[in-house]
Amino acid sequence: MIAPCPTRAEAADAVLGRLAQIVGVKHVVTDTLELAPHLVEPRELFKGRARAMVRPATTAEVSRVMVLCNETGLPVVPQGGNTGLVGGQTPHETGDEIILSLTRLDRLREADPATNTLTVEAGMTLTRVHDEAARIDRMFPLSLASEGSCTIGGNLATNAGGTAVLAYGNARDLVLGLEAVLADGRVLSNLSKLKKDNTGYDLKHLFMGSEGTLGVITAAVLKLFPRPRAIETAFVGLADPAAALKLLELALDSAGASVTAFELMPRIGLDMVLRHAPGTRDPLAGKHAWYVLLELSAQAEHGLLEALGSLLENAMSRDIIDDAAVATSLDQREAFWKLRDMQSEVQGREGGSIKQDVSVPLALVPRFIADAEGAVGARIPGARMVAFGHLGDGNIHCNVSQPVGADKATFLTRWAEVNAIVHAVVTRLGGSISAEHGIGRLKRNLLPAVKDPVALDVMRALKATLDPKGILNPGKVL
Amino acid sequence: MIAPCPTRAEAADAVLGRLAQIVGVKHVVTDTLELAPHLVEPRELFKGRARAMVRPATTAEVSRVMVLCNETGLPVVPQGGNTGLVGGQTPHETGDEIILSLTRLDRLREADPATNTLTVEAGMTLTRVHDEAARIDRMFPLSLASEGSCTIGGNLATNAGGTAVLAYGNARDLVLGLEAVLADGRVLSNLSKLKKDNTGYDLKHLFMGSEGTLGVITAAVLKLFPRPRAIETAFVGLADPAAALKLLELALDSAGASVTAFELMPRIGLDMVLRHAPGTRDPLAGKHAWYVLLELSAQAEHGLLEALGSLLENAMSRDIIDDAAVATSLDQREAFWKLRDMQSEVQGREGGSIKQDVSVPLALVPRFIADAEGAVGARIPGARMVAFGHLGDGNIHCNVSQPVGADKATFLTRWAEVNAIVHAVVTRLGGSISAEHGIGRLKRNLLPAVKDPVALDVMRALKATLDPKGILNPGKVL
Repeated sequence: MIAPCPTRAEAADAVLGRLAQIVGVKHVVTDTLELAPHLVEPRELFKGRARAMVRPATTAEVSRVMVLCNETGLPVVPQGGNTGLVGGQTPHETGDEIILSLTRLDRLREADPATNTLTVEAGMTLTRVHDEAARIDRMFPLSLASEGSCTIGGNLATNAGGTAVLAYGNARDLVLGLEAVLADGRVLSNLSKLKKDNTGYDLKHLFMGSEGTLGVITAAVLKLFPRPRAIETAFVGLADPAAALKLLELALDSAGASVTAFELMPRIGLDMVLRHAPGTRDPLAGKHAWYVLLELSAQAEHGLLEALGSLLENAMSRDIIDDAAVATSLDQREAFWKLRDMQSEVQGREGGSIKQDVSVPLALVPRFIADAEGAVGARIPGARMVAFGHLGDGNIHCNVSQPVGADKATFLTRWAEVNAIVHAVVTRLGGSISAEHGIGRLKRNLLPAVKDPVALDVMRALKATLDPKGILNPGKVL
Repeated sequence: MIAPCPTRAEAADAVLGRLAQIVGVKHVVTDTLELAPHLVEPRELFKGRARAMVRPATTAEVSRVMVLCNETGLPVVPQGGNTGLVGGQTPHETGDEIILSLTRLDRLREADPATNTLTVEAGMTLTRVHDEAARIDRMFPLSLASEGSCTIGGNLATNAGGTAVLAYGNARDLVLGLEAVLADGRVLSNLSKLKKDNTGYDLKHLFMGSEGTLGVITAAVLKLFPRPRAIETAFVGLADPAAALKLLELALDSAGASVTAFELMPRIGLDMVLRHAPGTRDPLAGKHAWYVLLELSAQAEHGLLEALGSLLENAMSRDIIDDAAVATSLDQREAFWKLRDMQSEVQGREGGSIKQDVSVPLALVPRFIADAEGAVGARIPGARMVAFGHLGDGNIHCNVSQPVGADKATFLTRWAEVNAIVHAVVTRLGGSISAEHGIGRLKRNLLPAVKDPVALDVMRALKATLDPKGILNPGKVL
């Protein structure tokens, strides 16, 4: 007797049953309410559906899940803290994917102060990574707005940036070893603590920044640093981005690796924060067109304040800066940082805000800001550009707020158009249309226009080699 | 009429003729005398033959050469300054390969002090890279014994290490953008000056460290740094590697990123230098079992000497170190460095020397040195281990000199045996059998025993994807 073919629904149920055998019934989430927050990304630009969310607790379980998905052709969307800003972690609208949540894989495998490493699983939040480092009197420098909820696995999969890149590099630069599960379930295990290892191709860099399309990162060995004993923070008023760039050059020349933050803000951005964030106040007496938050850190307890003072005096005497305040307490330091950290959030209180995440070669930042503002203003009179961010990395979020009084929804329909205007300037200056957020779905269709076609071909070939069935985060990046 | 098939020799001649059309007749070198130095690697462990050495002058010529080689299945061995220590740049004995010399591709494409970058071609020597950086008042930190003749392309293809890794990272960490020619002649061009660029997979890290097996690096954008205004160097005597490790921890804790060199040497290594290198002398009055060359660098002109002094006093008061001399002149600094730099060379004057290039997690260095010395001594009584090198990176060259009076040739027949003894200790401690020199031919057969089999499979798959005909440096690494 021949058994009847299962229907599609029966086949789907069968797969979910097998997934439940691997991770346990309660970790194959199909409940609509529980699923809902995982189907939409933070800015609500993408909203999808999923067959289920599967939550393995160990690398072995991730491996078995991938074996099953590869065997059945079930597409997988890896998800950590769901804080990504390009829709990389959001399932498609078709509903035929599963979300592979890494949040239960959150153990500290080892803290090793003698080698200055932390071996952590992918689902650990960045804040907890900071805490675990502090527990052994060390520091993990990666720092982002979403650090309370983003996970280290997501940070590595997207090669996250943030405010500490200037001195410590991007997320990929903070990793010694990596463990990842391949599309077919094989576990690539290289949880090395070595600073030097030239035994073959560097595979970890292939997985980091691939946004879950080449493998699922399950654990990593992170580099730790000594905790600085002195941190000095200045809030500086100056005339324009060119002056800010001169200040950066002066700072690097006089303080080198001690320059641990260099963030740019325009007056309009500061005004928005002062307007909407309770308890904030302008640290400087007069108004300035632009501001820099400058931070120096050192191991030595003494001398840093003097170094900062002489840097600022030097900059003042050369007419590079107009005014500066130095934080005299931890509270004041936090107040300065709040003016920077709230930039993005308060833009939402001023109506529609179209976000950008671009970079250009350092020397071209002033020209980039001027050209981008001019180009956007010419197309949308009254549009308010708020160009702020990591000047030290050439990475400026030149977000565009709607003209005062304009209709928010109508303005937001121009998202792609405004992006295109800014990206044209970026591309002309040899910049990147995604400095730190990645490609995901948001910029997938933009990639072919800006990327070397040979690089795209190689990327496609690598994808086909490592994920021949195309089940790992399909439709993202490529 | 059917044309007769060309003989093998005729076919070979035809290819050389076509290569001459691309690069010019005089740059297809077949002269035995001119070829000879390119057929052997510096330690004469490998000696090969080649059909010719081809010297393209531009990336376009490299591309055309690769198109032809790919079409005709002609295997290619890329070569820079021919200073590699694992035979990666040496052709096989079969004589059917061509050497692709990159030395004519040595232009400075751009020096950009404002963005702190240098765009250079692969054939530029490392010393010239240093000079070009100095010309615009910047520093390129990569520093190796062979810097006068090695080329930056070779440094990147092998992810070179050296004495500045502690503060600045390996060669791959010093690169922003890369240009490479693929096996089929396509040019992958990403000469980006960006510190942040998350538009797709990071392809540059795949080519760096792949030893010419995945593509031919033709140019790169290098990161530059401010030139330090103050450098202070100490030569420290101490009891053992564990004390050296404690000193390192103290140094990093008090001086952080200012610690720019931390090199370990044993008394036996110092004795060999004092014996064979004219003009050298022991900087310390008494004899010590071990020595550290410690260097601090800073942007500030003042305060560094005091910082070094208080670090050494602190270490002395905790009984971590026994004695120390601080260089009071540039001459003295150079004299200290000579004691370190001559370590490898003078070993050759003491008879046979079997070289090692391994790394272990930082905290395990003392155990590694003790275990390796014990294991080698048990097998070869009287063998003299000279364990020196980059302690700050966990990278110790524990070279083994023959017993006094033993026969050199007989001792050197035990090269693989001694390597195996040391590698067994390395592997047990989670270390790497090639810290900075690469795999090449020397360690190709050792790789399968120490590498994660999944990683090896992925490496093979990447090789097949990027070089399906296997013409790029065949038989190296994999």
